Amino acid sequence: MSKVGLWIVGSIGIDNIETFTEKRTDLLGGSVTYACAAASFFTGVGAVGVVGSDFPAAFLERYRHFGIDLAGLQTREGATFRWSGVYESDMINRRTLDTRLGVFADFSPELPETFRDAPFVLLGNIGPALQLHVLDQARGNPFVVVDTMDLWIRIARPELEKVIRRANLLTLNDAEARLLTGRYNLLECARTILSMGPQYVVIKKGEHGAMLCSKEGMALIPAFPVEQVIDPTGAGDCFAGAFMGFLARTRAARIDEPLLRRALLHGSVVASFGVEAFSTERLEHLLPAEIESRTDLLRKMCAV
Amino acid sequence: MSKVGLWIVGSIGIDNIETFTEKRTDLLGGSVTYACAAASFFTGVGAVGVVGSDFPAAFLERYRHFGIDLAGLQTREGATFRWSGVYESDMINRRTLDTRLGVFADFSPELPETFRDAPFVLLGNIGPALQLHVLDQARGNPFVVVDTMDLWIRIARPELEKVIRRANLLTLNDAEARLLTGRYNLLECARTILSMGPQYVVIKKGEHGAMLCSKEGMALIPAFPVEQVIDPTGAGDCFAGAFMGFLARTRAARIDEPLLRRALLHGSVVASFGVEAFSTERLEHLLPAEIESRTDLLRKMCAV
Repeated sequence: MSKVGLWIVGSIGIDNIETFTEKRTDLLGGSVTYACAAASFFTGVGAVGVVGSDFPAAFLERYRHFGIDLAGLQTREGATFRWSGVYESDMINRRTLDTRLGVFADFSPELPETFRDAPFVLLGNIGPALQLHVLDQARGNPFVVVDTMDLWIRIARPELEKVIRRANLLTLNDAEARLLTGRYNLLECARTILSMGPQYVVIKKGEHGAMLCSKEGMALIPAFPVEQVIDPTGAGDCFAGAFMGFLARTRAARIDEPLLRRALLHGSVVASFGVEAFSTERLEHLLPAEIESRTDLLRKMCAV
Repeated sequence: MSKVGLWIVGSIGIDNIETFTEKRTDLLGGSVTYACAAASFFTGVGAVGVVGSDFPAAFLERYRHFGIDLAGLQTREGATFRWSGVYESDMINRRTLDTRLGVFADFSPELPETFRDAPFVLLGNIGPALQLHVLDQARGNPFVVVDTMDLWIRIARPELEKVIRRANLLTLNDAEARLLTGRYNLLECARTILSMGPQYVVIKKGEHGAMLCSKEGMALIPAFPVEQVIDPTGAGDCFAGAFMGFLARTRAARIDEPLLRRALLHGSVVASFGVEAFSTERLEHLLPAEIESRTDLLRKMCAV
């Protein structure tokens, strides 16, 4: 088995999603799923996660369709993680209706030998203790991106701070940045987060794009204005996955801000495709040429 | 008296403003005030408005400081328009505590002879019937920008639709665009507004920037990330005023999208200075070189 340049750990789930216009059940979801699918447009990527014995073969087939390396996928006796949620008509705010951890409750991620030397690591949104556990299995000095969410900020702060200290880049949304830092102004949030260890922080603002901040300065990353958002689930994971995939593809000796900007722009574009359908359905028939053409269009929209 | 290239009609008021940290009374305010001050960095600008006999001489002095042509300023027996409001800690949502129309209740804007041939017109945020009344006094074929607000969408829709039909460009914020069109997605809002007559629509999204839309396409205009917002009052007026001032300065034979983008970027930058202090206090000692340097910085932040 060949070595991967990027691996991603996170959740794998089966989702029931209700939007203002549609209700869909038994969808392939989870942060690893979205992030790996998005990364696969740029690079070979390995998934680290767990599924239950009920996980449909058709979903494994989807991973294979994206060429995702499944050496890090554990199958355990029991039920796959399930999430049910409903979006408000703004397609931003959502309510969780039900969460069933299943085999995810005892998840202990193991890094396959072929993943251990990867120069790029995305610690997707799972508990920070698990993120640390799997990161400890990596060798060398990878570029580590950490994603997180409000839950961990609230209930696992000490572990989260440890992960953040080991991150090269932390990504989180505006509300989470405010929750983590107790600040309102996003520049102040960014400054506080940078003082916690990472070189970079990316604050995601949904349809309003994202901010990349370092001690040296700031970049504004636009979001592509999507005509019709069908399902925003996984947008942040697609963003992070595509951006890491882009970085991994360049094999750049040094990661600097101009490179990060280009990577984040591609993340933004892939995420904009992702929300055009449920689950990974849009990504399944997305062409690299479509990514390039939308990236060009977004660049043109921002040219001043 | 020499002719002006741009005139702006709107409200002139005395404001009491309360923010999370500060409370200020008797501030010079109103849409004309902010918009003319902002435009004055780029071009000669004429103000069309009304004040009461209580209007402080010091405020007239401020207009003169900005070089604003006051031929269109009426002084009437009675009290100047007064507005009192309080901002929430997010510095976005605000509540009106008190509005006293005073002489503004009977305002009938008259366009001085020296304003009538101006090639640029900004119909600031006042009732659409007044906007129409003053626009009818203009000659030639000026480039007309119309600003509006939720109040007029609710109570004066037929007149507002008439003004919109005569606008080259309509500017309004995201909530107002949704209220006007009954749509949620901003691209759909923009499309609906364009079908009402104007060639262009600019949807303002506060700290998230603005979208310029035409039938041909769209441009994303960034907002400059401000370290500390002291008072957001008048930000939209500064944006529109500076953008019109920039357009007027170019004396371009033809107004096209690339020119509008540059103008809007300057509007965004001047607005970002405006919110750094109460009233026009930051603009009073703002230097053209500061505008240029922040414009360059903002361009660099968006370069991808």
